Amino acid sequence: MKFVIEAQDRNTRARAGLFETDHGVVHTPIFMPVGTVKTLSPLDLKENGAHIILGNTYHLYLKPGLDIILKAGGLHKFNGWPGSILTDSGGFQVYSLDELRQISEEGVEFKSHWDGSTHFFSPEKVVDIQRTIGSDIMMVLDQCIANPSDQETARKAHLLTLDWARRSKKRFAETCSLYDYRQFQFGIVQGGIYQDLRRESVNGLLDLDFDGFAIGGLAVGETQDVRNEMTELCTDLLPQDKPRYLMGVGMPEDILDAIDRGVDMFDCVIPTRNARNGTVFTSNGKLVIRNAKYKQDFKPLDETCGCYACSNFSRAYIRHLFNVNEVLGLRLATIHNIHFYLNIVREARKSIVDKNYIEWKKSFLNAFRTESS
Amino acid sequence: MKFVIEAQDRNTRARAGLFETDHGVVHTPIFMPVGTVKTLSPLDLKENGAHIILGNTYHLYLKPGLDIILKAGGLHKFNGWPGSILTDSGGFQVYSLDELRQISEEGVEFKSHWDGSTHFFSPEKVVDIQRTIGSDIMMVLDQCIANPSDQETARKAHLLTLDWARRSKKRFAETCSLYDYRQFQFGIVQGGIYQDLRRESVNGLLDLDFDGFAIGGLAVGETQDVRNEMTELCTDLLPQDKPRYLMGVGMPEDILDAIDRGVDMFDCVIPTRNARNGTVFTSNGKLVIRNAKYKQDFKPLDETCGCYACSNFSRAYIRHLFNVNEVLGLRLATIHNIHFYLNIVREARKSIVDKNYIEWKKSFLNAFRTESS
Repeated sequence: MKFVIEAQDRNTRARAGLFETDHGVVHTPIFMPVGTVKTLSPLDLKENGAHIILGNTYHLYLKPGLDIILKAGGLHKFNGWPGSILTDSGGFQVYSLDELRQISEEGVEFKSHWDGSTHFFSPEKVVDIQRTIGSDIMMVLDQCIANPSDQETARKAHLLTLDWARRSKKRFAETCSLYDYRQFQFGIVQGGIYQDLRRESVNGLLDLDFDGFAIGGLAVGETQDVRNEMTELCTDLLPQDKPRYLMGVGMPEDILDAIDRGVDMFDCVIPTRNARNGTVFTSNGKLVIRNAKYKQDFKPLDETCGCYACSNFSRAYIRHLFNVNEVLGLRLATIHNIHFYLNIVREARKSIVDKNYIEWKKSFLNAFRTESS
Repeated sequence: MKFVIEAQDRNTRARAGLFETDHGVVHTPIFMPVGTVKTLSPLDLKENGAHIILGNTYHLYLKPGLDIILKAGGLHKFNGWPGSILTDSGGFQVYSLDELRQISEEGVEFKSHWDGSTHFFSPEKVVDIQRTIGSDIMMVLDQCIANPSDQETARKAHLLTLDWARRSKKRFAETCSLYDYRQFQFGIVQGGIYQDLRRESVNGLLDLDFDGFAIGGLAVGETQDVRNEMTELCTDLLPQDKPRYLMGVGMPEDILDAIDRGVDMFDCVIPTRNARNGTVFTSNGKLVIRNAKYKQDFKPLDETCGCYACSNFSRAYIRHLFNVNEVLGLRLATIHNIHFYLNIVREARKSIVDKNYIEWKKSFLNAFRTESS
């Protein structure tokens, strides 16, 4: 995968880049929404400026299942998304199953949350599954650990992750795309909150020559300082000419912190999960749309926003929809929040190119932290 | 209201007409979807060819409430719908509350299904409420009765409805639109399944010179023959130069039966309620999308349909969305069913204008009744 750095901020490690898959160009920094987010179709995401979406391997593997995706001709054809797709390894979902899983050196056994049936993911199988899904970028199977975890637990998980990365890379090299376009593979850095483990993890992965690198095991409850420290340590060691993906981050401020440190790709449930509760992000901070103060507020959610919801509907109307449990409210809030997140990375990128990243960031955060609206 | 008959079928009473409100021209026969149907915005309805939508007075009165709608500048401004709006009187919803209502000559008392608070609708108040909502067409308050009801019950309800119609007309004449556009008022024929009562009801209403007439009290469990007989009896007596609206009908075949008899306007929950259960209408009959046989069926819901769902997604994908309880499935099925209903009336109209209504209807029903898909 060719990753081009178009501009580099002078004061931070923030960079404006781009890479190309056979489904189009992705400009970084980029936020990747999940492919099917409550009420939104992949095409809705396109209309809101998404270049690349995230597919959940665990979910797709269980339902609709690989036979259907294969017969459809891959996930792009199945869900109608014309752009790039990155799939996670399924590991994170499996580890979230808690009692339903059993980890060995070979892989991880788990029970489906749908019907309790037993399944097994090995690093090799996860490559094969993503070959069938046909994502443009696939992730290796890693071992996620709880936070806090002691150093010994973190070390074991990191070593297993590294061993699995080797096996994943081997399987990837021995197989090929089932469809008429290329696939790329990213490795994942682990090592918890321990500097030496993070260093070992990055160095181990560098030998394997992945197309890009993810930083995993963060956004799991550690402090902002620790997350920033671990992120910076990783981006310091990772090659300049490969994209970096900070998994599961985060709030708008967290994303900017990571962009500062040279991260290029993001995914997070925060914008969609918040939308579901009626919390929307605006340029003046968060806004809880159910609040009585919006009852007769006929302004858009965010007066500076050009999304479908803000162009056509008022706070009073969207509040009303939430109050009468009309799913359209959820849809409009979701559209807005996704648009807001995509807009942050778009503006950050523009400011890096225009050489005023720090000024833009300061002005964005000043307004965002007022929470005045 | 000026109602123009553009074409009249030679073999039936079917007619292609049009009327104009200050929010646009409505071509009849027309199907009116409810303004906010699960997951669809008013603008989505516009994109699917709706000219006029239905607003529920009962629901709007309780939430968001008249103060908010007034402050918004009327319902069109509140919900972003640029076309025409017809509001029901709220009576049907109130009668559906069952134990929560008490009818007197003066009006009907009921308790809110939200909080149990007591409210009172009189014919006058219902006019005032619809003045505040600012619908283009308002309905008078009528008394709906259960089916079956004996003749004496039906007679009393019809007489009360007629008295209320007089009071409604008077209030309408004494008040004016709160916004910068005109409002029209329709009367409602009652009389249950009794020919003489229906005749009396129509004749009573004719004296009151409404802008259009609805046929109420049908689609409540009577046979198809009785419904057709009552519809025909009414359209026989109603003036040619006013639109006729058959309330709450129905299945595609029922709508065609009524178009045959000179009905111009329809509303029904069937397309949206069915969509919610995953039942979609196609040119080859109904299709239950959850069925296993659609698991690997990559055709659109209806191969002859040009809606957003059929243009972009397969049966297999929509089935998958229903199977994983993803609201996008509901949205796509709803878009399709609304499009299907609007397409029936659009094609019926075209065939009336093109002088081949009977041939079109036969061919539509032949395909629709195969249920082969």
